[in-house]
Amino acid sequence: MAKFKPISELINNYQTGYSLEQEFYKNPDLYEVEMQNIFMKHWILAGHTSQIPNKGDYLLFEFDKESVIVIRTEDGSVKAHMNVCTHRGSHICLEKQGTVKALTCPYHAWTFNLDGELKAARNMHEDFDFSDNGLHKANVELVGGLIFVSLSENPPSLDGMRKDLADVFDVFGFDHMKVAKHQTYHIKSNWKLSVENYQECYHCAPSHKDFAKVHAMAMTPEKFNKQKEDFIAKSDGYVRTKASPFYFDLAKEGEECYQYDRNPLLPGRKTGSKGAEPVAPLLGKLKKYEEAASEFMVGPVTYFLIYDDHMLGYRFLPDTQETSICDLFWFVRDDAVEGKDYDLDDLTWLWHVTILDDEEIIVNNQKGVDSRYYRPGKLSEWEHFPQNFLNFYLNAISED
Amino acid sequence: MAKFKPISELINNYQTGYSLEQEFYKNPDLYEVEMQNIFMKHWILAGHTSQIPNKGDYLLFEFDKESVIVIRTEDGSVKAHMNVCTHRGSHICLEKQGTVKALTCPYHAWTFNLDGELKAARNMHEDFDFSDNGLHKANVELVGGLIFVSLSENPPSLDGMRKDLADVFDVFGFDHMKVAKHQTYHIKSNWKLSVENYQECYHCAPSHKDFAKVHAMAMTPEKFNKQKEDFIAKSDGYVRTKASPFYFDLAKEGEECYQYDRNPLLPGRKTGSKGAEPVAPLLGKLKKYEEAASEFMVGPVTYFLIYDDHMLGYRFLPDTQETSICDLFWFVRDDAVEGKDYDLDDLTWLWHVTILDDEEIIVNNQKGVDSRYYRPGKLSEWEHFPQNFLNFYLNAISED
Amino acid sequence: MAKFKPISELINNYQTGYSLEQEFYKNPDLYEVEMQNIFMKHWILAGHTSQIPNKGDYLLFEFDKESVIVIRTEDGSVKAHMNVCTHRGSHICLEKQGTVKALTCPYHAWTFNLDGELKAARNMHEDFDFSDNGLHKANVELVGGLIFVSLSENPPSLDGMRKDLADVFDVFGFDHMKVAKHQTYHIKSNWKLSVENYQECYHCAPSHKDFAKVHAMAMTPEKFNKQKEDFIAKSDGYVRTKASPFYFDLAKEGEECYQYDRNPLLPGRKTGSKGAEPVAPLLGKLKKYEEAASEFMVGPVTYFLIYDDHMLGYRFLPDTQETSICDLFWFVRDDAVEGKDYDLDDLTWLWHVTILDDEEIIVNNQKGVDSRYYRPGKLSEWEHFPQNFLNFYLNAISED
Repeated sequence: MAKFKPISELINNYQTGYSLEQEFYKNPDLYEVEMQNIFMKHWILAGHTSQIPNKGDYLLFEFDKESVIVIRTEDGSVKAHMNVCTHRGSHICLEKQGTVKALTCPYHAWTFNLDGELKAARNMHEDFDFSDNGLHKANVELVGGLIFVSLSENPPSLDGMRKDLADVFDVFGFDHMKVAKHQTYHIKSNWKLSVENYQECYHCAPSHKDFAKVHAMAMTPEKFNKQKEDFIAKSDGYVRTKASPFYFDLAKEGEECYQYDRNPLLPGRKTGSKGAEPVAPLLGKLKKYEEAASEFMVGPVTYFLIYDDHMLGYRFLPDTQETSICDLFWFVRDDAVEGKDYDLDDLTWLWHVTILDDEEIIVNNQKGVDSRYYRPGKLSEWEHFPQNFLNFYLNAISED
Repeated sequence: MAKFKPISELINNYQTGYSLEQEFYKNPDLYEVEMQNIFMKHWILAGHTSQIPNKGDYLLFEFDKESVIVIRTEDGSVKAHMNVCTHRGSHICLEKQGTVKALTCPYHAWTFNLDGELKAARNMHEDFDFSDNGLHKANVELVGGLIFVSLSENPPSLDGMRKDLADVFDVFGFDHMKVAKHQTYHIKSNWKLSVENYQECYHCAPSHKDFAKVHAMAMTPEKFNKQKEDFIAKSDGYVRTKASPFYFDLAKEGEECYQYDRNPLLPGRKTGSKGAEPVAPLLGKLKKYEEAASEFMVGPVTYFLIYDDHMLGYRFLPDTQETSICDLFWFVRDDAVEGKDYDLDDLTWLWHVTILDDEEIIVNNQKGVDSRYYRPGKLSEWEHFPQNFLNFYLNAISED
Repeated sequence: MAKFKPISELINNYQTGYSLEQEFYKNPDLYEVEMQNIFMKHWILAGHTSQIPNKGDYLLFEFDKESVIVIRTEDGSVKAHMNVCTHRGSHICLEKQGTVKALTCPYHAWTFNLDGELKAARNMHEDFDFSDNGLHKANVELVGGLIFVSLSENPPSLDGMRKDLADVFDVFGFDHMKVAKHQTYHIKSNWKLSVENYQECYHCAPSHKDFAKVHAMAMTPEKFNKQKEDFIAKSDGYVRTKASPFYFDLAKEGEECYQYDRNPLLPGRKTGSKGAEPVAPLLGKLKKYEEAASEFMVGPVTYFLIYDDHMLGYRFLPDTQETSICDLFWFVRDDAVEGKDYDLDDLTWLWHVTILDDEEIIVNNQKGVDSRYYRPGKLSEWEHFPQNFLNFYLNAISED
């Protein structure tokens, strides 16, 4: 397909209750709008402070054509700079993760300090102003040890979320976690098909046999809602069960969207693992296994699933319009010792197999969406989160 | 080349007797017109009933972004459905060929019967109408056991061809064949360069040494025409020798184009094989080797070469604008037993080496056509079939 | 980025003293202008007579979608023909280098003599004129044994350069060299980033440790200029030290741009090799090692570095807009014997490791230039050659 409808017509044609029409996944101008209005504006998980504990430690946060250096500076704070030399544009940091004394461009040795200020550049003309040639800065906010980055000059506020969920961050020990493993999965699909897949459990029973052995959510909505009611009724409230639904299109004006919820696992299941038995020490201030897991989502593409003994981080990013990147982060409490308190293979098994299932599903979804015979289909009662995402998405691409 | 002439100008510029100018192979809008006016309209060989003998057996017929499920239904008939779930668009059948009890989408388990009717979809809203959500149907017609598919709602008629060639189908036993082998070849060229290659034997002597040892057609036209005249004069008429030339631009209004012809092999050659000796039992009602082969072409991209002991099917399809797919099918009589009545390697040798020769030729043709210095060249007297194809093609892309 | 500014606006926006903005590397229409106004107009090194010593010997000179046959003809001269059959466009020569009796197209056997005239074509219609169907010719000029090709009908003149540099060609024995090795390197970058890299030594000290052990040029400009002054002052003038700066934007009207210069090596360094010791016999009429190297550049993408014992040829070509080809040619005197007078590994070591360094640098440059945060950066005092190249480039793409 070589010609595309105007984006406004595409948006106007959308019918609530249906999936998106094909051009949403194909129009290259729309892809650029998505980059501007979503990925270069909203808060996205860039990594975790445990990955860059010492000054000069950095990691790269990358999507599409962009590369951001997330670095621990001299004073111990975390900053983010675009990985683009202000001289002739070379990438400065070439490894995904590393440690540097200064940010020295490998091309002509222009040298920036850890704060991104230009400190050395040989043989420049007299009128050259070092202070004009620092690295382009990106915004950083920490939520516990989670590092969020926004490329916007005017990013949405995280304050409402911080205030609302203070007890949640406290009880799960967000200040006392570490990344046990980070793995990247490449998916041959537009990023939205990956996100839509994550947003619903209508596919869980047919597609995720292992997940369905642990999570009540994979049952029918009726059964799940009943079990959830019972779970909330008998909860002692030590871990909040009340949902915070400011997600996607429900976010308050000027605030980043987020959501918190707590859901029961199947009876007798303690955590998300092969036998549903613990795979790491209890997180934060938890005292017992509640046979439940909390969900925490913030911004458009960062999702957490908090079991009592570990937390999973999910991040979806576009690589090109046709390909997406899914990053999984497994978190445990920061004093847990690998080999003693947890085994990496046991910890990561469930969601590694689950994302591999999803990858296959999503790729086959893309193949069908590419057909001239694809038409937006009717969503089920169980696909309300994808609907919320689509509402958010349509708003986002309508801006400006 | 980033800008293209209007398609109408391209068509008007074409000079009979010459090859096509470069933009015919490059303009992406034209490629979409080709899909609409040729590949999604005309009849194309999708496979053979012997490949899906039992109910629930299916095979996929795929080109460009399209995937069609060709399936044996409950009542033993053959139907074709687009391989696109009416929910969120996933491919339903993931293997090239298989057997299913029902068509269950791997994503959310929407289940369609073998006729493509939606029979199960969990948790749909009350107003959901199952009867509105069946799979998109494609047209199927059988010619003997050959399965032809058209994606058009108003496909050209095959009736004239059926009536005209009834004796041909009868004598070669079209109702009593099976696929002995099916192989797919990928060619880095626009599909038209592949078709143009098939349509002429001007290249046979320089390019196909093995073919030229069997087929009289590889000689000069003068020699070939003389031998053909003699062959027709002494024919007993048991197998029709009279050509049916309703091909390409010669098709009657509303009818699919087709062609039948019978041509002599070189003296003493019985069939298309390494030593020109039989490689399978005589087809249909044939009683002896006639040292000849019949050609049967139907629709724009499906061609058959009928030796006395086996039939070859050739099908050209676009994969992308820059790449094409050539499928070869070898047919033998349906009661022939592999290993006893025929050896697969002997059966397939000649045309496997011939298509490999052609692949190299076609790829090098594409490389030169890509040059800014390529100009349409003058066709020889021996390239009248490519000219017919070009006439048909220009008509086809001029429609609507 | 899906939309591009008009090329004229892009040119007008350029600020002298800065690198190019992103769209110069991305706009596909501009890429086509570059092909027309630079690569299909100016003189480019196609090879060397020592590579095609006998009649019928040919080599292919290829860039983008173009392929040129450079061939030794019957009378011993060198000619160039487009590798595109005038019948249906096939490539005629399929190997990078070879020997033929005639140029016979592998498709339909149309046969051209070594001068590109059509001599045989079977079964053509009566009105077919052989003399109208010869291969498209390209211009060839020899500079010593160096073969230059221009695809323009009206190429710039090489006369001024020939007259000016006659003594240089004589002293280095341009008529008495041979290609000892030719190697092709593929770089994932737009061709201009590759050329810009070659045009400056601001990156030499940080990037090329081995080069910097030999060449004075890798020091600061102050030190280098001082050493060069001293070198010229004490030179006996046997090899010309006076620069000829008619390069890039400085070329005279109607003349091809070129440059000659002679620069000192570091004290005690005899040539460009691992230990800076000789790796081949002295070139041409040289009598001693001068601890210097001459540079000779001609046309936009062909550069030579002439050490006293060997000459290096560098050629940059576009493969696609996103990928470029760098060819390195190592030349020695034509009577030098491999294994006796020179060792290939020793001869080629320095520039093989240097181009590998450069490849990495250039690819990382491209990655950063692809970012939405890339902005043209200020050039240093040491980047005057890239500035000259940019001036030439902007003039070239402004023509017509």
